[in-house]
Parts: sequence; C-alpha cells; structure tokens
Amino acid sequence: MIDLYAMVSPNVQKIYLMLEETGLAYTPHQVNIWKGEQFRPEFLALNPNAKVPVIVDGEGPEGRPYTVFESGAILIYLAEKTGRFLPREGIARHDTLQWLMVQLTGLGPMLGQFNHFCRFASDNAYAVSRYTTEAARLYRLVDDRLGRSRYLGGEAYSIADMATFPWFRTEARLFGQTHPFMGVGSAEHPNLWRWFDEIAARPAVEKALEVIDRHPSTLATATTDEVDRVFGRGQYARRS
Amino acid sequence: MIDLYAMVSPNVQKIYLMLEETGLAYTPHQVNIWKGEQFRPEFLALNPNAKVPVIVDGEGPEGRPYTVFESGAILIYLAEKTGRFLPREGIARHDTLQWLMVQLTGLGPMLGQFNHFCRFASDNAYAVSRYTTEAARLYRLVDDRLGRSRYLGGEAYSIADMATFPWFRTEARLFGQTHPFMGVGSAEHPNLWRWFDEIAARPAVEKALEVIDRHPSTLATATTDEVDRVFGRGQYARRS
Ligand SMILES: N[C@@H](CCC(=O)N[C@@H](CS)C(=O)NCC(=O)O)C(=O)O
Ligand SMILES: N[C@@H](CCC(=O)N[C@@H](CS)C(=O)NCC(=O)O)C(=O)O
Repeated sequence: MIDLYAMVSPNVQKIYLMLEETGLAYTPHQVNIWKGEQFRPEFLALNPNAKVPVIVDGEGPEGRPYTVFESGAILIYLAEKTGRFLPREGIARHDTLQWLMVQLTGLGPMLGQFNHFCRFASDNAYAVSRYTTEAARLYRLVDDRLGRSRYLGGEAYSIADMATFPWFRTEARLFGQTHPFMGVGSAEHPNLWRWFDEIAARPAVEKALEVIDRHPSTLATATTDEVDRVFGRGQYARRS
Repeated sequence: MIDLYAMVSPNVQKIYLMLEETGLAYTPHQVNIWKGEQFRPEFLALNPNAKVPVIVDGEGPEGRPYTVFESGAILIYLAEKTGRFLPREGIARHDTLQWLMVQLTGLGPMLGQFNHFCRFASDNAYAVSRYTTEAARLYRLVDDRLGRSRYLGGEAYSIADMATFPWFRTEARLFGQTHPFMGVGSAEHPNLWRWFDEIAARPAVEKALEVIDRHPSTLATATTDEVDRVFGRGQYARRS
C-alpha cells in the first residue's frame, strides 16, 4: 500500500496518473498548503522541502517502508519498481528521461512563474512579459516535438507524458486552450492537443482525473492573509 | 569520445565535473548564447530546446552516437554508462535521485530567477522579494540536509552533489558567500560551506574548474541589444 500526500496541483496529478496506470494500491491524504500543513513536523519528517507530492511505499527497497519526495523522483521510483513506463535501458530510456527533464526543469517551473504573475501579480508587466514569452516558447517546443513523435519520449506512452499532461490540463482550465493573451491559439498547437486528447481518453487517466476532481482546490477557501503568507507578500514580504 | 556543448553556466559545469570524475575523454565546444548560436539549425538538431549543456557520445547505446540534452538527463546517462556516482538500485539510488531533483526543479530554476532579478531587473521589488525569500529558504534547506548527511544523497559523493555545487559556486562568485542582502551569512550555513570546501578540494573538481575557467563568461562582451534579446525585454518584449 502506498500513501500519497497530495493536493490539487499538476505536480501531484502526475503521481495519480502513474499510480492508476500501474494499478498499485494507494491512499491519498490531502495537505492544505494555505493552512501551512506542509510545515507540520510530521510532514517535514517526510519531506524537509515542505512540498507535495510525497509517497510512502509500505513495501520499499530492502523490505522496509520508504519515503520519496519530488514528483520526478517518485515517477522514476515507481517506474523502476514496476518495470513500466520507463524502459530499463538504451535509447528509449534516455530519450524518455530527457523529455521528462524538460518538464521538470523548464516547463513546470516556468509555467509556475507564468501562472503566478498572470493570476496574482498581473500588474508586474516585466515579469508577465518575461514568463509569457517563455510559456509561448515552451508550447511551441512541445507542439513541435509531438509533430515528430507520437509521445514525448518516443513511440510509447511514458512518465515523460504523465509529467507533462497535467500541466497543460491545468493551463487549459485556468486560461482556456486558446491562450489568447499569448497570441497563440489551439489551432497553432495541433500536435499538442492531439496528444492531449489521446492521453485524456486513457482509462487510467480518466480514473485518476475522477479521483483528483473529488478534492476541489483549497485556494478558493484560503483567506487573503493565507495566500499572502504562501506567496511571501504584503506584511510577509522580506524586509531588506 | 564525448562532445560537450558548453558555456560558463552552472548547468554546464555539472557535466564537466562528472566527465572529469569518470575520466571519460571529451572535447568542449563553446556556444555563445548572446550571439544566438543556440538557434543555429545544427545546434537545434541536437537540442530543439536551444540550451546547453548537450553531449554527443560517440559510443552511445546500441553502438551508435547518441545525443543527450538537459543536465539532469546527461548526469543520469553518464552515471548509468559508467556505473558511478548513482547507485544502481535500492535506497541509496532513490535518495540520490530525490536530492538531484531538488536541484533540478527548485534550486536551479529559482536561483536562476533570483539571479536574473537581482542582477538585471533589481528595480522590480515584488520579484526581488519573491525570489530572495525562496533563495534564502533553499540555502537553509541545503544547510540543514548537510547537517544530517555528509553528502546530499547520503554518505557517498554523487550526481546530486555535482548538480548542486556549481550553483553555490556561481552564487558565491556573483554575490559573495555572506549574501548580506539575503540577511544571511556564511556563518549561518556552516554545513553548506563545509560540504562546498570538501568538494572544491577533489582533484577532479579542481581539474574541471580549471578547464571551465579557461573560457570566461561571454556576457561581458555581449552588447545591450544582445542581452535584451536573450531576456526578451525592451524592443524584444512581447507585445500584448
Ligand atoms: N519540484 C517539486 C515541486 C512540488 C511543488 O511545487 N509543490 C507545491 C504544490 S504544486 C507545494 O507543495 N507547495 C507548498 C509550499 O511550497 O509551501 C516536485 O516536482 O514535486
Ligand atoms: N534545464 C536545462 C537548463 C539549461 C539552461 O538553462 N541553459 C542555458 C544556459 S545556463 C542556455 O543555454 N540558455 C540559452 C537560451 O535559453 O536561449 C538543464 O538543466 O540543462
């Protein structure tokens, strides 16, 4: 049995997708970051970085329970545990890891900044422009890749796709598929949305999204003060 | 023989460290991003994401030359090729991957934003505060980890350390080890700088840094216009 520490966020959704695809038994536990639950000692003992997702695998390596934080590390751990969605060696393995890294190091962090400034600090023209430029570039990169390859890592569905799909799902829900403010439309990213629709129709993905959507975003019920605290603004801004 | 496409940047330095530690023969090729060399068709054929580092391994899997982009993917590729600096299985492997991911998804992207705003857009108080808060948190996280563990991944030097060391080296060179503007001093991060000094003294690291420092930063010779182009600002800012 696997415990999954979760909230509604693309980095967590990746893990639901992988757990449903592999059929591993799991129990989700919601962590409300607006209420600061990620800073409780019990949670910091699991992840000193104070972030979800985290899993605790009751049947870890060497026959003991094992804790894994960081969505990318969890995906690789589960892939190596089950022997699925990441080839064990060769070109297909390393192609998959490269595109997984594009999500982990670029697409995730940069769409994260893009979302932050567009939604919560849209009067910051410099930052909105900076991250919009990068977001638009990343959309083109992924669309271009998916015009040459059925999936991100190659011909097979993999953890690279599971890492990336929730980000576009989240963007589409926040801003719509046409992203008019980016000057780009869904018609300009036909390969991306072809791939997106194909993944969305997978039974394991449908199941995962059904479970995910049972827990609505806790942002809606967070107070202004709680949001400012998480974002380090207002009275919580660093004093220089 | 491995070809390394490089510039002076922490993400590239990681790969020099790994190549020197493993003793693999390599040839560095400098890519001047201010002059736009990352957008040349020959380079985009290696990395459609238009970023260094990239390696081409003349003796890749399946007996053919193989190209790897993304510093995290390159480190894992070289570790699995040589069987060094990333255990093949078990707890030590997955602990190492978790701390590698902390660098790849958090420390790298967030110190990258911190550097950008502190150096090139320091009048943007909201962004400077946002990323300074996060940078200070990451320093504490790493210092805390290194107070409990000799290296980031555990008792052995690994690709997690190689990924992280160049970031602190770059920060120390840009801002000094005392980071007064963060309200923190080197005395507040004793574990971090203990680990830093130990790594800096490794013969392979000394060798790598000597090679790296042969190629000074090309930023110094970039024109204002070239810098604005890379940063997407001024006349290059997105028009909304
Ligand atoms: N690099 C991490 C990022 C995880 C992350 O950013 N988690 C957010 C929710 S999406 C979180 O827990 N934030 C709470 C906090 O930062 O205090 C991963 O890929 O797992
Ligand atoms: N996630 C990538 C980041 C690499 C990266 O940001 N490279 C920069 C230099 S540090 C670059 O090539 N920038 C050129 C550009 O973005 O046009 C990695 O870890 O390799």
